[in-house]
Amino acid sequence: MYDCAIIGSGPAGVSAALTLKALSKNIIWFGNKGLSAKVKNAEKIRNYPGLSNVTGMEMQAAFLAQIEDMGLEITEKTVTAVCGMGDYYGILCDQEIFEAKTVILTIGVDAVKPIKGELEFMGRGVSYCATCDGFLYKGKKIAVICTSKELEHEIKYLCDLAAEVNLCPLYKDVEISADNLKIITDMPIEIYGVQRADKLIFKDKELSVDGIFMLKAAVVPSVLVAGLQAADGHVTVDRACKTNLKGCFAAGDCTGRPYQYAKAVGEGNVAAHSANEYLAAQK
Amino acid sequence: MYDCAIIGSGPAGVSAALTLKALSKNIIWFGNKGLSAKVKNAEKIRNYPGLSNVTGMEMQAAFLAQIEDMGLEITEKTVTAVCGMGDYYGILCDQEIFEAKTVILTIGVDAVKPIKGELEFMGRGVSYCATCDGFLYKGKKIAVICTSKELEHEIKYLCDLAAEVNLCPLYKDVEISADNLKIITDMPIEIYGVQRADKLIFKDKELSVDGIFMLKAAVVPSVLVAGLQAADGHVTVDRACKTNLKGCFAAGDCTGRPYQYAKAVGEGNVAAHSANEYLAAQK
Repeated sequence: MYDCAIIGSGPAGVSAALTLKALSKNIIWFGNKGLSAKVKNAEKIRNYPGLSNVTGMEMQAAFLAQIEDMGLEITEKTVTAVCGMGDYYGILCDQEIFEAKTVILTIGVDAVKPIKGELEFMGRGVSYCATCDGFLYKGKKIAVICTSKELEHEIKYLCDLAAEVNLCPLYKDVEISADNLKIITDMPIEIYGVQRADKLIFKDKELSVDGIFMLKAAVVPSVLVAGLQAADGHVTVDRACKTNLKGCFAAGDCTGRPYQYAKAVGEGNVAAHSANEYLAAQK
Repeated sequence: MYDCAIIGSGPAGVSAALTLKALSKNIIWFGNKGLSAKVKNAEKIRNYPGLSNVTGMEMQAAFLAQIEDMGLEITEKTVTAVCGMGDYYGILCDQEIFEAKTVILTIGVDAVKPIKGELEFMGRGVSYCATCDGFLYKGKKIAVICTSKELEHEIKYLCDLAAEVNLCPLYKDVEISADNLKIITDMPIEIYGVQRADKLIFKDKELSVDGIFMLKAAVVPSVLVAGLQAADGHVTVDRACKTNLKGCFAAGDCTGRPYQYAKAVGEGNVAAHSANEYLAAQK
């Protein structure tokens, strides 16, 4: 049983991990070893105290060196669900379950709002995870709505399984190609179905499919954690970064604007201290 | 008329200044060119993202270089009061007044709580500012309660004016000495008087004086800004770092725990964005 599971490896996750490590807590940290694509791609960061006028790559390099210095490790698994189990949490990664007394969500925010029907058909023809649900669509016809180029490896995975993949890329400079991949340049406006989602609706056409994958840079918070209070796509937290669920904290872009590195780093620190206090009170 | 006056040059002030500068705001920034004594004296900082395992001196050097890069200047004046003037603020520094549409308080926190009678006799025999009120005690007998070695230059100034200075140092390694300076090792427990404070009371003795100076590393927020809501010595703010006064924001240690660099830097950023939004709405 871990003291804390941190989900996300952007600046808020980095800050929370450093602080919990400094507090000698036993943590598991889910994310990407390359940290955050958003940070990596930032052109210039002028207002982060301590790193003067750096590129995103330089900030990332500083974070990575520091993580290594502190002996922190990132577990590269996609968290598909977080379940409250009374006095601890179960963190589901595809087939595996990890257990932790507290959870800190630093899952970022996706600029792309859910489209009509998306949340309604979640788990019934709409999936957020290629590696978790891809096998269900072996030899079938699917649509993929993808918000970030960094996720093209997941599209590739789906192309290897499905008979036909219809990709609606919500990003520029698509690089992926495959014999069974069709690129759709129109924007989908609705996911439709009766029992299950089976149609993607565009302004002036429809596409019948067996399933739809929403590949987003950030998960919708209430999709990840059942019962989590959110508003306008942001996790609701107080000044101590506490959510409405005991032992569950959130920090960074996922809690709202400003979407800034300094703000994310500050909240990661606060969330770590709140988790630490919560753990102390449980003893 | 400045867009914003930032008061304080710790990490929260640095963060707010960098962000407002990046947003092209016209600011005045009150503090010390050496930034914060607390930062400078920190032995090791292990959990500030981007600066791996640095000393306080190293963090300060990084901040100072960045401030210079951004063309930011610190005005080395002691702010003695902030007065709401309707739709702007008057910032009093001894005899001078500066005007700003918004104020960001990053005034830190003093570990030392007010002693009995201190707030009651403020302005009536109790002063927080040697340079402002020192001349009132020329040739007189005063007591000085001082919480930080960094403030010994203010004690020196008082020794040059007063006939007798009785110093109660609440810090270690007193360095200052003067012919008319007496060091008292007991802790004062109360400031007493009728119309004006004229007595410092200790556990088993009393000291009659003409005036008492409280030299603290941080001012009491509600002493600095009339009408400011505070609780337990901390400025009350919401998640956007707004205080109860329109156009007045607060960030860093003065808003409460955790007293951490990352938290301060995050709030400085948030306060700057809130001030910027407030300014945009005023137009």
